[in-house]
Amino acid sequence: MVQGAANWNTEITEDWLQNYVDDWVSFYRKQTSEGEVASYIPILKEANQDHLGITILGNNGMTINSGDVDVPFTIQSISKVLSFIVGCMERGVSYMLDRVDVEPTGEAFNSIMHLEMRQLKKPFNPFINAGAITVCSILDGKTSDEKLEPLFELLEKMLGYRPALNVDVYESERDSSMRNRAIGYYLLETGYLESDLNITLETYFKQCSIEVTVEDLAKIGMILANDGEDPNSRDELIPRQVARLAKALMLTCGMYDASGKFAAYVGVPAKSGVSGGIIAVSPPRVREEELPFIDGCGIGVFGPALDDKGNSIAGIKLLRHIAKQWDLSIF
Amino acid sequence: MVQGAANWNTEITEDWLQNYVDDWVSFYRKQTSEGEVASYIPILKEANQDHLGITILGNNGMTINSGDVDVPFTIQSISKVLSFIVGCMERGVSYMLDRVDVEPTGEAFNSIMHLEMRQLKKPFNPFINAGAITVCSILDGKTSDEKLEPLFELLEKMLGYRPALNVDVYESERDSSMRNRAIGYYLLETGYLESDLNITLETYFKQCSIEVTVEDLAKIGMILANDGEDPNSRDELIPRQVARLAKALMLTCGMYDASGKFAAYVGVPAKSGVSGGIIAVSPPRVREEELPFIDGCGIGVFGPALDDKGNSIAGIKLLRHIAKQWDLSIF
Amino acid sequence: MVQGAANWNTEITEDWLQNYVDDWVSFYRKQTSEGEVASYIPILKEANQDHLGITILGNNGMTINSGDVDVPFTIQSISKVLSFIVGCMERGVSYMLDRVDVEPTGEAFNSIMHLEMRQLKKPFNPFINAGAITVCSILDGKTSDEKLEPLFELLEKMLGYRPALNVDVYESERDSSMRNRAIGYYLLETGYLESDLNITLETYFKQCSIEVTVEDLAKIGMILANDGEDPNSRDELIPRQVARLAKALMLTCGMYDASGKFAAYVGVPAKSGVSGGIIAVSPPRVREEELPFIDGCGIGVFGPALDDKGNSIAGIKLLRHIAKQWDLSIF
Amino acid sequence: MVQGAANWNTEITEDWLQNYVDDWVSFYRKQTSEGEVASYIPILKEANQDHLGITILGNNGMTINSGDVDVPFTIQSISKVLSFIVGCMERGVSYMLDRVDVEPTGEAFNSIMHLEMRQLKKPFNPFINAGAITVCSILDGKTSDEKLEPLFELLEKMLGYRPALNVDVYESERDSSMRNRAIGYYLLETGYLESDLNITLETYFKQCSIEVTVEDLAKIGMILANDGEDPNSRDELIPRQVARLAKALMLTCGMYDASGKFAAYVGVPAKSGVSGGIIAVSPPRVREEELPFIDGCGIGVFGPALDDKGNSIAGIKLLRHIAKQWDLSIF
Repeated sequence: MVQGAANWNTEITEDWLQNYVDDWVSFYRKQTSEGEVASYIPILKEANQDHLGITILGNNGMTINSGDVDVPFTIQSISKVLSFIVGCMERGVSYMLDRVDVEPTGEAFNSIMHLEMRQLKKPFNPFINAGAITVCSILDGKTSDEKLEPLFELLEKMLGYRPALNVDVYESERDSSMRNRAIGYYLLETGYLESDLNITLETYFKQCSIEVTVEDLAKIGMILANDGEDPNSRDELIPRQVARLAKALMLTCGMYDASGKFAAYVGVPAKSGVSGGIIAVSPPRVREEELPFIDGCGIGVFGPALDDKGNSIAGIKLLRHIAKQWDLSIF
Repeated sequence: MVQGAANWNTEITEDWLQNYVDDWVSFYRKQTSEGEVASYIPILKEANQDHLGITILGNNGMTINSGDVDVPFTIQSISKVLSFIVGCMERGVSYMLDRVDVEPTGEAFNSIMHLEMRQLKKPFNPFINAGAITVCSILDGKTSDEKLEPLFELLEKMLGYRPALNVDVYESERDSSMRNRAIGYYLLETGYLESDLNITLETYFKQCSIEVTVEDLAKIGMILANDGEDPNSRDELIPRQVARLAKALMLTCGMYDASGKFAAYVGVPAKSGVSGGIIAVSPPRVREEELPFIDGCGIGVFGPALDDKGNSIAGIKLLRHIAKQWDLSIF
Repeated sequence: MVQGAANWNTEITEDWLQNYVDDWVSFYRKQTSEGEVASYIPILKEANQDHLGITILGNNGMTINSGDVDVPFTIQSISKVLSFIVGCMERGVSYMLDRVDVEPTGEAFNSIMHLEMRQLKKPFNPFINAGAITVCSILDGKTSDEKLEPLFELLEKMLGYRPALNVDVYESERDSSMRNRAIGYYLLETGYLESDLNITLETYFKQCSIEVTVEDLAKIGMILANDGEDPNSRDELIPRQVARLAKALMLTCGMYDASGKFAAYVGVPAKSGVSGGIIAVSPPRVREEELPFIDGCGIGVFGPALDDKGNSIAGIKLLRHIAKQWDLSIF
Repeated sequence: MVQGAANWNTEITEDWLQNYVDDWVSFYRKQTSEGEVASYIPILKEANQDHLGITILGNNGMTINSGDVDVPFTIQSISKVLSFIVGCMERGVSYMLDRVDVEPTGEAFNSIMHLEMRQLKKPFNPFINAGAITVCSILDGKTSDEKLEPLFELLEKMLGYRPALNVDVYESERDSSMRNRAIGYYLLETGYLESDLNITLETYFKQCSIEVTVEDLAKIGMILANDGEDPNSRDELIPRQVARLAKALMLTCGMYDASGKFAAYVGVPAKSGVSGGIIAVSPPRVREEELPFIDGCGIGVFGPALDDKGNSIAGIKLLRHIAKQWDLSIF
């Protein structure tokens, strides 16, 4: 039997779920003080540590918004999922997987060491910085704007509007992220890059600086949950094979070097970013008790106070709670 | 639409599926020559490199047996799933996860290096040798036989018979596996072990030497697919939370340092052993096209020719083919 | 001009030097409290943290004894120099250097990691534990006593008496040194060992448990300083080529992962042990100002309070002071 | 007795030594074909693989020139010794050693990995690229030319002329050395650098591109052999303490990750560069047989065919031969 279902009477309505989520957002917001906002990019330090917001969108139209859902934030590493998808759409999955592996590393996202230590022929996966920068070099286009145009077009189709670049964040990242430049030059020297390094890094910093809300993340998550198809329009925005590959990668590599724990404790494909965003994906699943509201849902979370792995500290706890109660795990 | 479904007319019967699997077993058996049987334990070298067999059991009673299904083999690393489950049942999940992490490593299964390099407080996960040996030290009991009794009892309930220990393999492993002794002494020195080292290693070598068939593996897989419940008897043999945790771990860490690729290309929880066995688990899933035969199925594969990661070379290809055609991926 | 020589009038006598050394032993003894006695072998914890003693023997007969020179202690890692020398005498230098490299590692003495990480064909050098254990496996003999007999005979020739084994320390090391067993099994598996592992480890633990005094160390040092020749008897106890090779190794690898700093700050071949002993060697050298007393001298130091690298904390400071004042550096 | 001295009658003259060296240069020149010229900087590939030349300068005026002594080449990593010396002269030894350690690493010269793996507070030593770049950042001056002016002045005093920068090599290094830029950005991010990164790298590339001959190297070596004093003019060009520290570092870290083997087999402080140059230093030493010609000598070698560690393959063999025959080892 579904855990926590004992709490639920037969009249589970969207309102009931909304109240339930509101209660737990309030509860976990108290725990934001245990984390810290990202500091490696100066401008990210300005985030409000107490923020916590969540949007859940079901493929049948359910919409739950709770907490700080109106605060825009930059997408950061969550963009790695999108550029990997766009790369696969442009070049094909095989081309991409010949150039970026899909193995979890056990290392921090910004590690250079394992590239050298293992004498790898390709970066470990597209969600560590080395892999994501390599993906940016593969994207079509001669300038960073050309490279990102298909990504913005995909976002526009998914979100219904074209999100903006936060220029302040972009400039802050571009001017301060020395580790990413170190990784970039390492990749250049080992011959991984397929474009000019500066254009590649510009592309990477720009994609990280796209501004979104939790509702945007939830929409993207819902489309991934439904194998690339927008459940409202029935349009296939992402090829089915690519969407499912992206979900597999999110499950094994999406939460930095806490991916294994997230898979074990939460059990859904997800990707986080250092600004405190998380996108989580709950594919349709056979359940003993039907919960049509939440089937095939996408979830966006925002909570800029991070744990020591770089994931939203309250966001992960909130997701873990809801995933357990609503039986979202894919396992 | 389900890939490959175009091949299938409306009359998909068990016979049809049986023929389909037979064809592909024949096809992939030709590729066993590209791999090599394990050599690190002398007795494993005696395996027949050309063997390839598969059993698929659906939760509705479907049974498909194809190829070399009658050849017994030792369970090897697949036992790590079972002892982890038994440990969780004896001590509780929290106790276990305080002592063994659940992160994929990016390292080979027999690596010592990462223990030292990362100054870990606990082994990376229960499916690398360091973690599995630690689990054996946690199991209740003062002797290796006492420690393994609950595991044998669980197997007896799942399989309907009590499998035997292959004494030759056990003695061969015990006498030749110097790397595991090195790991054991390392664990002892760092204080991870909760039992005497020799008894712990004896337990580990014994659990690896349990003799099974592909049908046995398929039964275990089917029970895991159904969250620990035997779909025939409706008995809960493994607590639901433990079964789902085990599946999450199989997905992220089950196929050695090829786990990420297996998740991306095949997409089901699985665990392999160096004798050439693989257990794969396909939880029930919402599908556009209903395929009731294969829903909630367990799969056992045996093919002793291994690839360079230590996984059955033909077995993985066969699984990948079937998973793609039958849409088994959990993503 | 020799540093510190300004302090010295023309009548530098042995008495003057004796007083000078006495003063500095008193001074540096106060700093023993900054270190800690070794704890990884239980019995070593019983050492008196305040002890500090030194013997300096010149090849012209000068003898300076100061501080706690009568306290016997076990030779520990300093024995690695002796067994390497004996191995070279038994098998020849080429045979030995084919099996053990002579590179400093930058790693701690008991590291396993670098063996795996670098996929080495041989251990990095004979003074890390992995290398020293390999050397013990190469020594002639079917038992540990047979293997060590030539080492004891060499010691007897050098010291004028046959030193004893401290059985308590030997048994304590044998029963507690799990990391060395881990290293041993790792070496066994990778095929480095040329004898049975247990006999090899017994040999290693026994050689570490030989009991000596600072005067013994100084004698060995003096013989090494004079390229293997006893300056009193004029007997060549160690072949010249072997003695010089040993000194080169002591300089680059003798002080664990502080060897580079010791070379830079002190500048003489030396080897330390975790019981707090250090042997230092000052080969004859052209000096602007003749200091015949100290030419070609050997130095033994004992101070069981160790720094974080495992070297005698006050012993290193005392050596550094004397080496600087007396211009002992070989550079 | 000095090895090889049996070959030498009582009338060893400079002519005799000249002929002896000529013979062995011819002999070892045949072995240049076993190595390869450096290729990581495009312009270095143009070197003539067959070149081999040597100059030996004794502090009594002996001058031996043999082989290709007139071919100019860029100093490359040998410059790391000079900039370290200049840094010590500008800031003091303590300031420098607080910022750069003096430990050998066991890693390749261009490794980034160990910086991350060991979480070091400072680079391992000034002769790996990470350390040398850090040293360049410490040098006084706001531009690369200002930073290098004292180095050029020191060279002018030592050589009697101001060596030139090879602009082609400088531009080639600046434009192609992506690994060094990767290291530079890594150092910048971890806060090691005391100057602007681009100016620091410019300084580094320029110092590597200074053009010298083997006679120049021999002069520098002779001055180091004599503790910083020019034996002709009796001027102290380098403070004694700094010269001796530099020699200690050359011995433990000068020949990349073959430094231990060079110390064991050759036994003199030395530093090599990827253009094929080696500088070797033989401090005065007490010898049984007086060899006044070679006492306190400096040696310059040039042979652009490199071994797999990046050292001149024939140059090392030639040095090893001469060091053994002439008993140059400091041990």
